[in-house]
Amino acid sequence: MANSRAEQMVARLRDMQVASAGIVASALVSVDGLIIASALPSDVEEDRVSAMSAAMLSLGERIALELGRGSLEEVYIRGEHGYVLLTSVGSDAVLTALAQVEAKRGLIFLEMRRAADDLAEMLE
Amino acid sequence: MANSRAEQMVARLRDMQVASAGIVASALVSVDGLIIASALPSDVEEDRVSAMSAAMLSLGERIALELGRGSLEEVYIRGEHGYVLLTSVGSDAVLTALAQVEAKRGLIFLEMRRAADDLAEMLE
Repeated sequence: MANSRAEQMVARLRDMQVASAGIVASALVSVDGLIIASALPSDVEEDRVSAMSAAMLSLGERIALELGRGSLEEVYIRGEHGYVLLTSVGSDAVLTALAQVEAKRGLIFLEMRRAADDLAEMLE
Repeated sequence: MANSRAEQMVARLRDMQVASAGIVASALVSVDGLIIASALPSDVEEDRVSAMSAAMLSLGERIALELGRGSLEEVYIRGEHGYVLLTSVGSDAVLTALAQVEAKRGLIFLEMRRAADDLAEMLE
C-alpha cells in the first residue's frame, strides 16, 4: 500500500536532513503559518517554527519587493549558535530548516532547493 | 583637517562597495531605524532602507532566539533580482547592503564583516 502524501513529505524532509549533515530540524509550512509536514527533534516546538516561518516569509517578501530585489526566493538568518534557513516551495508554502553553526551553507541550500522542488510537486 | 566621523563612515561604506563588486547600495542604520551613514544610488530611498533594516533586525533577533540559534549575527534575503544582506555592527547598529543577483555572497559577507568591524570602532 502506498504511503499517504503526508508520510511521503515527512520522508522527503528526513532524506534532506540525511543528505546535508548539519540540518537538525525541518518543516514545510503554509504561507499562512500552518505546518504541512515536519521532522523536528522533541526540543523544537512545531508551533514556534510555523509562527516564525510565516512571520519571516511575510517580512522577507515585503523587504525584497520594497528594496527592488523581486519576489522572495531564500532567507537565511545566522545566530551565534546556528542558522535558520527558508526557501520558497511553489507559491503557497515555505521550507524551513534549522542548522548547526558548523554546517556548510552551500550544501544545505542545494539540498533544500532539491527538497523544495520535490515537495512542490507533492503539494500540487 | 581630519574628515568628520560621518564622512569617514560614508568613505568606509564606499570602500566596501569597491572591494566587493556587486554591492550596489549600503547603509549603516541604528537599531531603532535611523540612518547613521549611507552610500545609496539616487533610486534607492534612504527611509525605505532604514525602515526595512530595523524591521528585519527586530524579527531576525526574535527568530534566532526563539529557535535556539543564539544572538543574531547575519541575515540574507535573496529575491529574484538580487540580495539584501544585513550584519550586526556592535550592539547598536546594523550594516545593510543591496547586491546584484550575480554577486558572490561569500566575498560580500567577508567585506561586510570587515567594514562592520571598522564601523563599530568609529561608533565607539
